Amino acid sequence: MSVTAAQGFTASGIAAGIKENGNPDLALVVNNGPRLAAAGVFTSNRVKAAPVLWSEQVLKGGVVSAVVLNSGGANACTGPKGFQDTHATAEKVAETLDLNAGEVAVASTGLIGVLLPMDKLLPGVERAVAGLSEHGGEKAAIAIKTTDTVHKTSVVTKDGWTVGGMAKGAGMLAPGLATMLVVLTTDADLDRDALDRALRAATRTTFDRVDSDGCMSTNDTVLLLASGASEVTPKQEEFAEAVRAVCDDLGQQLIQDAEGASKDIKVEVVGAATEDDAVEVGRSIARNNLLKCAIHGEDPNWGRVLSAIGTTRAAFEPDQLNVAINGVWVCKKGGVGEDRDLVDMRYREVHIVADLAAGTETATIWTNDLTADYVHENSAYSS
Amino acid sequence: MSVTAAQGFTASGIAAGIKENGNPDLALVVNNGPRLAAAGVFTSNRVKAAPVLWSEQVLKGGVVSAVVLNSGGANACTGPKGFQDTHATAEKVAETLDLNAGEVAVASTGLIGVLLPMDKLLPGVERAVAGLSEHGGEKAAIAIKTTDTVHKTSVVTKDGWTVGGMAKGAGMLAPGLATMLVVLTTDADLDRDALDRALRAATRTTFDRVDSDGCMSTNDTVLLLASGASEVTPKQEEFAEAVRAVCDDLGQQLIQDAEGASKDIKVEVVGAATEDDAVEVGRSIARNNLLKCAIHGEDPNWGRVLSAIGTTRAAFEPDQLNVAINGVWVCKKGGVGEDRDLVDMRYREVHIVADLAAGTETATIWTNDLTADYVHENSAYSS
Repeated sequence: MSVTAAQGFTASGIAAGIKENGNPDLALVVNNGPRLAAAGVFTSNRVKAAPVLWSEQVLKGGVVSAVVLNSGGANACTGPKGFQDTHATAEKVAETLDLNAGEVAVASTGLIGVLLPMDKLLPGVERAVAGLSEHGGEKAAIAIKTTDTVHKTSVVTKDGWTVGGMAKGAGMLAPGLATMLVVLTTDADLDRDALDRALRAATRTTFDRVDSDGCMSTNDTVLLLASGASEVTPKQEEFAEAVRAVCDDLGQQLIQDAEGASKDIKVEVVGAATEDDAVEVGRSIARNNLLKCAIHGEDPNWGRVLSAIGTTRAAFEPDQLNVAINGVWVCKKGGVGEDRDLVDMRYREVHIVADLAAGTETATIWTNDLTADYVHENSAYSS
Repeated sequence: MSVTAAQGFTASGIAAGIKENGNPDLALVVNNGPRLAAAGVFTSNRVKAAPVLWSEQVLKGGVVSAVVLNSGGANACTGPKGFQDTHATAEKVAETLDLNAGEVAVASTGLIGVLLPMDKLLPGVERAVAGLSEHGGEKAAIAIKTTDTVHKTSVVTKDGWTVGGMAKGAGMLAPGLATMLVVLTTDADLDRDALDRALRAATRTTFDRVDSDGCMSTNDTVLLLASGASEVTPKQEEFAEAVRAVCDDLGQQLIQDAEGASKDIKVEVVGAATEDDAVEVGRSIARNNLLKCAIHGEDPNWGRVLSAIGTTRAAFEPDQLNVAINGVWVCKKGGVGEDRDLVDMRYREVHIVADLAAGTETATIWTNDLTADYVHENSAYSS
């Protein structure tokens, strides 16, 4: 289903030969209208890949007719030649589909600092166009995988309209804005402002709160395209909630497929004075390598949670902090609480609640444990 | 030599039974004067262990006659009882040595959230006093080890006066202020202000720039005690340089003994607009788990360096960044530079130079690689 669940979209995914192993590596998503509205959010990393720089410009026009995505190379830190390659890719899509290149967004993922094999990519675009189909969403989702073990798609169908999407991401997963490639489509009949508001609201509390390894990518891109093909204009709140639900689902799938992870950790901060405090504390806990190791070892090491909270500027009193791990309040009022032996950590999902006892605001950050497998996956040459 | 290299100090280290394995776990350092001046810096973690809260008060008086240190338990997040235990430990030292408890600093290291076995610690204090010796510095350094594989000491001797010290630390190593326990002694005849200036200047560019795993301890303590026994008052600059040299040496020893590490990584940021920029960029690189994995795999993955730089607020232009790894400029002007295959990464020390091309300021941060051994050491129950 993926990006073709909504009416008005076709997609394809093929093996262009960018990846040396012959796996699918080129995806195309086309909006057949009648509307061509779009919104996008991109990495806040200041070192941005060429396709991010290009697509940011495309989105300023507010019209996106097609998105071409490749795995097998990030086209980041590739200088003017890298930007020319992105431009040439958009031109090739435009020429083949008889569009304006300024309406073609480009996204890339893979190794940083390597030029893309344009002699393979450009002929691949022609084949991707030839393969476009109303059922191509699944193939497109597969073609954007890098170290992902599964492809990620999500669909929410409401009264006469649909929001669907695909995502890739397994490493370099931390909030920048997005931290991965995501394309969302909808056949709702909405203008770019409505799309933009819904998308920014959704990413702020979903992808932005996924923090697998604290490492922010240079290529993060989340696009939302609307075709208007359903001829239904939903209420903004209803649409925003559908977009949020799809983003939340895709964010969960990213965490569940994070490189080398054995645990998905939900860090829920409650009792914060402000939402910003809750996010800062949640992120500090989620990025603490020692705690992430302890969770991997199924050790309910709440001292490491308090140590992480202590490095933040959030409002709290050390002797009022409470921490629960999988429902057991192992730390109460900054000291020893219930018996840590009561904590059952056998399952993949681990739930940490940090109560700052300083207010009523909350935030949830999702992260993973730190494992030997993560080290192995990321210490291989040119991984 | 350690803390007894300078005249006027005695020390001891014994096994009090705090550690279940029977290893030495209690150290005592006594300043026999004639001067009893002292300075100290402590963790900036807002969750502070009981001994840190106590010793901060002691240091406000500016007089420290003795320092008692235990391994086998951090006495952090232990509530009012934990603070009472620290107080009782200082009282016991004071009573046995006929001192004022307000002149006895206390430091603890080990697991967070567990009360110390006072029935073993207090009798241990008596045996530690009985064991005091002008040659006890080595034993004291051994007694403060936790997961340290070696004890760490350093001595600089100048014209008639000496600065010596000991340190422990192998994990939870990141700048807070200190990130470990360190006691420095000198027989130079200097007042507390001179000591304080020298110590703060030294820690700012040594321990503060050691960042093994980004995790800031609740117990970090660095103390500098002066006995005046040499009757020499060195110039401030000369003294400050000696203190800096000892701190730098001990900081290096901490990095070299970091838990599970196989590489010591020197991250040198040059061409920064400000020193703060250089430190922020250096720390961002040093804390990037993906880069730390790559270095472990001897992969000169400069894309991960640029990705880390891009997350900072420092002044730079992405297309002007240069990165050298072990002398090879693998990234030039934000893109591909010299052949990465020229980089030789066989040795334990790895030198990364990040040139921001935005000014003339520099800073060096030391870190370690991320290894499966680090995960194993820190995922064991109650490690």
